[in-house]
Amino acid sequence: MKLVGIIGGTGNIGEGLARRICQGGKYDVLIGSREAAKAEAAACRVTESLQTCTCELPGGPVGTCGCGTNANVCSADIIILSVPFDKVASTIESIGVACFEKKIVISLINPMLRYPKEKYFLPDRPVEGSAALAIQKMLPPSAKLITAFNNVASGKWELIDEVLDYSIVVCGDDKEAKATVMDLTRSISRLQPLDGGPLAMSGVVESITPLVITLALRNGLKDVGVYFR
Amino acid sequence: MKLVGIIGGTGNIGEGLARRICQGGKYDVLIGSREAAKAEAAACRVTESLQTCTCELPGGPVGTCGCGTNANVCSADIIILSVPFDKVASTIESIGVACFEKKIVISLINPMLRYPKEKYFLPDRPVEGSAALAIQKMLPPSAKLITAFNNVASGKWELIDEVLDYSIVVCGDDKEAKATVMDLTRSISRLQPLDGGPLAMSGVVESITPLVITLALRNGLKDVGVYFR
Repeated sequence: MKLVGIIGGTGNIGEGLARRICQGGKYDVLIGSREAAKAEAAACRVTESLQTCTCELPGGPVGTCGCGTNANVCSADIIILSVPFDKVASTIESIGVACFEKKIVISLINPMLRYPKEKYFLPDRPVEGSAALAIQKMLPPSAKLITAFNNVASGKWELIDEVLDYSIVVCGDDKEAKATVMDLTRSISRLQPLDGGPLAMSGVVESITPLVITLALRNGLKDVGVYFR
Repeated sequence: MKLVGIIGGTGNIGEGLARRICQGGKYDVLIGSREAAKAEAAACRVTESLQTCTCELPGGPVGTCGCGTNANVCSADIIILSVPFDKVASTIESIGVACFEKKIVISLINPMLRYPKEKYFLPDRPVEGSAALAIQKMLPPSAKLITAFNNVASGKWELIDEVLDYSIVVCGDDKEAKATVMDLTRSISRLQPLDGGPLAMSGVVESITPLVITLALRNGLKDVGVYFR
């Protein structure tokens, strides 16, 4: 099975994603953290939750969930960056930029300005136009950066007894890497991957998350899903 | 019945919107154009199409569709701006900015950079951050600018025998005007209005249209609809 490493895999989104990817039965996962003990605890929770899951599982066995430091998980074919935008540069630096050579790197990061009292969130675009375009500059030129999973409500990843049937817009400049990430997307619940064009489109996709949170805050909705059909 | 004026009402979107609004049976429409004859022809087509429509119509009578110059339609309570972004300033100037005093003005305008050969469209944000924020500067301070209907595929408005069940994100800084536009939205087919927060959010909503066109171009889809649920 292919291996997916999640940098920052002990956060809500990272751990939830690990569950979902393992559940799909087509990939093994490595959860990464700055502290190996935290990564191990998260991997144990993921493994346990998959054993007690009551949902419809794939015919075959589920993927395994291992763990390691953030540097360790870079041995994977596909690396998911699941850290806040303002921690990306220091995380990549501490791991060592060479670890990302030729890797497929997924960003699901959406920088936001939060105005919870006024009931809205706004995109907080870096000068490059999007988090993804900024992150691309931090990675070696041989890394293939793809954006995906940006607009899934963080709470939805963890609830592995629930079906996820959202549209997932996948953007990137490397055709093959994009196809690989679309395959990964297709392996998770009933997510529908859609080719969203070049990485230059990532700013649009990233900005949908603060919109979706605003829609939830203002319209009495919870965990708003995004569908393009 | 309340009156809705459509500036640039002889374009695809304008004429289609006129049909849909009249069809809802809660508003009368005035189609505006620089040339009164063109507006009259469009209004005739709208009226005729409503008579031959085979869809489920509201219980009561449909709204009437009148016409006039762009300046004439500013007598309406609600004014929809349906002209390309680069024509907005000259259109407002030729009508006379005073005509917009205290009016509810709806922008559904999405400036875009088009790369059809490369199969993607990108948002073309003015320095203000969005078309709406730029247009707000062109209007008198007493005008209440609201964005709505930005993400509906233009071809979908006209096909009045088809149900429209999309999510319509409505943004603006005037609470009452926003509620009025949400009511108007609710009167059209089965559109679902959602409060999208302040006008500062309009850039996100405008940028979804080039994304949606890109999704259509790249994924073999037609007239992609947007749903938040």
